[in-house]
Amino acid sequence: MTVITDYISTNKDRFIDELLELLRIPSVSADPKFKGDVLKMADAMKAKLAAAGADNVQLIQTDGYPVVFGEKIIDKKLPTVLVYGHYDVQPPDPLELWTSPPFEPVIKDGKIYARGACDDKGQVYMHVKAFELMMKTNSLPCNIKFMIEGEEEVGSANLAAFLEKNKDKLTADIILISDTGIIANDIPSITVGLRGLSYVEVEVTGPNRDLHSGLYGGAVANPINILCEMIASLHDKDNKVTIPGFYDEVDELSKEERAEMAKAPFDLKEYKNHLDLSDIHGESGYVTNERNSIRPTLDVNGIWGGYTGEGAKTVIASKAFAKISMRLVPHQGSKKIAELFSAHFKKIAPPSVKVKVMFHHGGEPVVTPTDSIAYKAASKAMEASFGKKPVPVRSGGSVPIVATFKDVLGLDSVLMGFGLDSDAIHSPNEHYGVFNYLKGIETIPMFYKYYTEMSK
Amino acid sequence: MTVITDYISTNKDRFIDELLELLRIPSVSADPKFKGDVLKMADAMKAKLAAAGADNVQLIQTDGYPVVFGEKIIDKKLPTVLVYGHYDVQPPDPLELWTSPPFEPVIKDGKIYARGACDDKGQVYMHVKAFELMMKTNSLPCNIKFMIEGEEEVGSANLAAFLEKNKDKLTADIILISDTGIIANDIPSITVGLRGLSYVEVEVTGPNRDLHSGLYGGAVANPINILCEMIASLHDKDNKVTIPGFYDEVDELSKEERAEMAKAPFDLKEYKNHLDLSDIHGESGYVTNERNSIRPTLDVNGIWGGYTGEGAKTVIASKAFAKISMRLVPHQGSKKIAELFSAHFKKIAPPSVKVKVMFHHGGEPVVTPTDSIAYKAASKAMEASFGKKPVPVRSGGSVPIVATFKDVLGLDSVLMGFGLDSDAIHSPNEHYGVFNYLKGIETIPMFYKYYTEMSK
Repeated sequence: MTVITDYISTNKDRFIDELLELLRIPSVSADPKFKGDVLKMADAMKAKLAAAGADNVQLIQTDGYPVVFGEKIIDKKLPTVLVYGHYDVQPPDPLELWTSPPFEPVIKDGKIYARGACDDKGQVYMHVKAFELMMKTNSLPCNIKFMIEGEEEVGSANLAAFLEKNKDKLTADIILISDTGIIANDIPSITVGLRGLSYVEVEVTGPNRDLHSGLYGGAVANPINILCEMIASLHDKDNKVTIPGFYDEVDELSKEERAEMAKAPFDLKEYKNHLDLSDIHGESGYVTNERNSIRPTLDVNGIWGGYTGEGAKTVIASKAFAKISMRLVPHQGSKKIAELFSAHFKKIAPPSVKVKVMFHHGGEPVVTPTDSIAYKAASKAMEASFGKKPVPVRSGGSVPIVATFKDVLGLDSVLMGFGLDSDAIHSPNEHYGVFNYLKGIETIPMFYKYYTEMSK
Repeated sequence: MTVITDYISTNKDRFIDELLELLRIPSVSADPKFKGDVLKMADAMKAKLAAAGADNVQLIQTDGYPVVFGEKIIDKKLPTVLVYGHYDVQPPDPLELWTSPPFEPVIKDGKIYARGACDDKGQVYMHVKAFELMMKTNSLPCNIKFMIEGEEEVGSANLAAFLEKNKDKLTADIILISDTGIIANDIPSITVGLRGLSYVEVEVTGPNRDLHSGLYGGAVANPINILCEMIASLHDKDNKVTIPGFYDEVDELSKEERAEMAKAPFDLKEYKNHLDLSDIHGESGYVTNERNSIRPTLDVNGIWGGYTGEGAKTVIASKAFAKISMRLVPHQGSKKIAELFSAHFKKIAPPSVKVKVMFHHGGEPVVTPTDSIAYKAASKAMEASFGKKPVPVRSGGSVPIVATFKDVLGLDSVLMGFGLDSDAIHSPNEHYGVFNYLKGIETIPMFYKYYTEMSK
């Protein structure tokens, strides 16, 4: 495969510079004040696809941000791979914890630091550059289509409708996604399972206005105390979620499957050191690598209420708020779980407060087969580039659109990502290894080659 | 007393205008960015005292904001009343809930709306204007001293040292304070008890950085969930505080005393309607008026952590924070209670998190006698101005310096305030009735008269 490595070696500085250029655009989809930047990012991605050699490059409008589309059809009899990625990023806060500004990318110790460096600009741009490489070296072995959306970080609310509307345009044999990771740079892996997600926001109201805690303290419901009590009651002593019905549809893995999972390399001491944890914490009866992959969870992602400024204010707040998300495993339904949460949360509220539950986005859990041609092609490609056969792993994260692709387009996805757990995606100081970026560009063309050969 | 009411009637517009002028100065002591305004307010108060006719008017420096001092000694053989008040105010947030800007006072429906309108600029300025009235009408019957501080809302940390240093300057027979309220405009009352305060801030740390809730959710301690559990455990099912030793020194009132308290007019339905509460909430075995006066309490005044912006972010925060205060009753010690809290809070933390507890200010609970000359003089003065004998009440609020005055100066205080519970002090839309402001100016000179007569 010297044609691949030669091309990368000659062009790698430009590959990196082009990615940095995209990382400078703060395409935060969650916050409306970045709307102009998200649209600018869509245009930039469109231009990059065209420059790489794609045909029919266009922005396809949705009720939210547009999808960037492009394709190269070389022969209708050959297989078609549909590449999915997203050009939007997570909000960068808390800003004060970044060691360099989130939208001013810098390279330190072989890593590119910026919001979106790994999730997902770096990973999606590997595909654009791998495509360029195949075009320039006349080695594209099959047809290829790109579909790069701008609302993944806010739940891809408009993607299902987009897929329905554009079914004909999107016909393909397999979907290829790089939005996950590998275990380590010397332990390649392929994601074969993803958790689903139900995300809600709650509001607890006590008195109709903020009150003086001296005059009213002890006599009226304090919505912050009540919210804390309600949240605390959502887990029992074994750290199991107490919402009635929460575990009803959960797939329990067999002893054999759990034994298989336990073979994946994992060093608990290093895990704790890396996160500076004095102890781990989770559901009784499961180990860390099970807790974050095959078990459903409930976490508060944000909480606020009352006086949060400097010094002391003796106030009883009128309202308290929390953002709460649940990670789901097969076959929990995200809508059903959100509804179970809502009904339970309202039921446990004491009569002295009023409670509202609002639904944010959700996504369905998935498990993908390891005996498919696509999985085997990805495995062979990674083995060739890393020199080691990749491990199949179930990840704790969610890529909700995988279930949607299966539902609407009838297509399976292969999740061949190159990030690392330590890349701090969704955190301050997100980064992506230059090694990983270039390794992705190297691996992807081989996937196309093996997939095309094995499809014959 | 027509000399008093005549003077008020002639000058009331000016009295109000002068107060509005002071309310325009945002003297927020809790927030360092208002430092210049707090100092400007001290100067303004000094100028007003001098204009009203006080001698030796000066700013006495402390390690924090200065104390405004002034006096009028007419005859050393006559009694001396030391007036205490404060020129600093609470922070105005949440700003978006104010119907008019907090530092642009407006008068609506006979009420002055502004931060500090009641607490304590309006109430302290009644004393300045009552003093002016007595000076201009040659009716000052005794000696008078003013001590108006600028750190009451942040715990009067430097006041004890100030009192020690200026003992000679502050010799007096009684301290007079208007920083409390009456039951209603037609039910005058005098505060004879105040709760103490212990105020702490806690920080719970889980992982050393914000994490992706998909990849880590369920496997590491979420500091927000843990903080909620810890806060929830601070109350039992009967809403009693669970900190060991918390109730050890609490003075239990006798049946007779509670029966006496129950005579104070209170309409539960109106209370609930006024605050839009579907139900009240508090310690089992006590009624509302006991819960907020003779019982100690624990309230979260603020909580924050994780993502609190628009939309959804799937993050596990590294840290979660809360501000927590406890209201104390005789004979709980504020320092001891803060220490009990701290020891308990650290003890209940699971090994998977780290906990810090920081102490904010505290204050001691007090109960004042109703058989003193000062109480009787205040009662007679209010009876004369309101046409109704005032009720002695124990308030839930704290004026921590009352205990300090007794300790350092050996002086009792009389708490003759004119605010209403509904004045929204410490809340958005704080206000003070023009009726109450003028009624204070009318009552105060009569207090001096009766106190001097009864001291003979």
